[in-house]
Amino acid sequence: MTPTITAFASSPDRGQGLARDMRVRWALEEVGHPYEVRLVSFDEMKAPAHMALHPFGQIPTYEEGGLVLFESGAIILHVAGRRPGLLPEDADARARAIGWMFAALNTVEPPILDLQIARMAEHDAPWAEQRLPLVHDRIRVRLDQLSARLGDANWLDGAFSAGDLMMVSVLIRLRSSGLLNEYPTLAAYVARGEARAAYQRAFAAQLAVFRAASARA
Amino acid sequence: MTPTITAFASSPDRGQGLARDMRVRWALEEVGHPYEVRLVSFDEMKAPAHMALHPFGQIPTYEEGGLVLFESGAIILHVAGRRPGLLPEDADARARAIGWMFAALNTVEPPILDLQIARMAEHDAPWAEQRLPLVHDRIRVRLDQLSARLGDANWLDGAFSAGDLMMVSVLIRLRSSGLLNEYPTLAAYVARGEARAAYQRAFAAQLAVFRAASARA
Repeated sequence: MTPTITAFASSPDRGQGLARDMRVRWALEEVGHPYEVRLVSFDEMKAPAHMALHPFGQIPTYEEGGLVLFESGAIILHVAGRRPGLLPEDADARARAIGWMFAALNTVEPPILDLQIARMAEHDAPWAEQRLPLVHDRIRVRLDQLSARLGDANWLDGAFSAGDLMMVSVLIRLRSSGLLNEYPTLAAYVARGEARAAYQRAFAAQLAVFRAASARA
Repeated sequence: MTPTITAFASSPDRGQGLARDMRVRWALEEVGHPYEVRLVSFDEMKAPAHMALHPFGQIPTYEEGGLVLFESGAIILHVAGRRPGLLPEDADARARAIGWMFAALNTVEPPILDLQIARMAEHDAPWAEQRLPLVHDRIRVRLDQLSARLGDANWLDGAFSAGDLMMVSVLIRLRSSGLLNEYPTLAAYVARGEARAAYQRAFAAQLAVFRAASARA
């Protein structure tokens, strides 16, 4: 059965691949699972039909037969459990890879989300400039620790896994801040993720949506 | 095999059960899995021996034979996969319950962490008072949506699951803010979680650690 995911009809990042459907597209490409995409506008995202699928009114969602999932972490874990390519066979190694997914989403991403809020929602606040260094420093604490653990390895724990997919996806959000450049091994880690054929296919697919929307506009 | 988890030797919340070992204790109690606890001081948490277990220098960790896990979400998912009591048997229902775990950690908890940062790390900042309403409002957006989805149900999706365990654990962090009182159905949801025998046992166990540390001090 071909699952259907949702994505922004008009991506706020202009096709840079920062929206969370990108993570799910990448995972589906890694395991070679075809999928369909339903585009939703910002108004549609907050309307009852979409809120029935996603109680927080966001993208992506994942529909497959009678199953409806939201949260990119949950969707990717589901996809990874169905087909090989994203999680190791060994039970302990699998648990550790899933651990890196949670680390990406609950330890590394929150301070990065905070930077996004500082730059978008609080951009004009009187404290914006003065507060930014604190936000940056909280991110650096995590990047210091992450780069120490990664060392000179290619991936976080053995072969590429859903944990790396999620961590790379989270770190990509830092690109425009310049912070990633302070950590050459993490920048190289992100580049290794982006160089994967599955990433490239997913990126091209979401960029095509943005270009088509721009051509219509 | 009896797993060993780590917890604060001296809990910063003075035994209120807000530290993340509480989530793992609760999960282990729900499935009836005995466990041991190793207490670590703040200095020990940042020392090489602990950083080898937890690259971000936090608690809890989980050790079981050769397996070392960190991130409470990953630990709880591992525990839930080993014994019945936290995840439904049906595959689709199981995927949805895991979805609520991710929603708790990646959608609901980040704005709550932001409030914690505002009240702790930025308490003396010149913008502290003026910024707080914005932080509160971002939390209210999520609580509005969560209470709309919960409606008058007891739990988020059928029977109590690891998704509820995680969501209740995240919402408990709001208690001192008073925000939870604005949402009677969510306050009742949290109270239902806290009333569970497994929660009570876990809470008593972490409180005993704090009391013993206080008695020594």
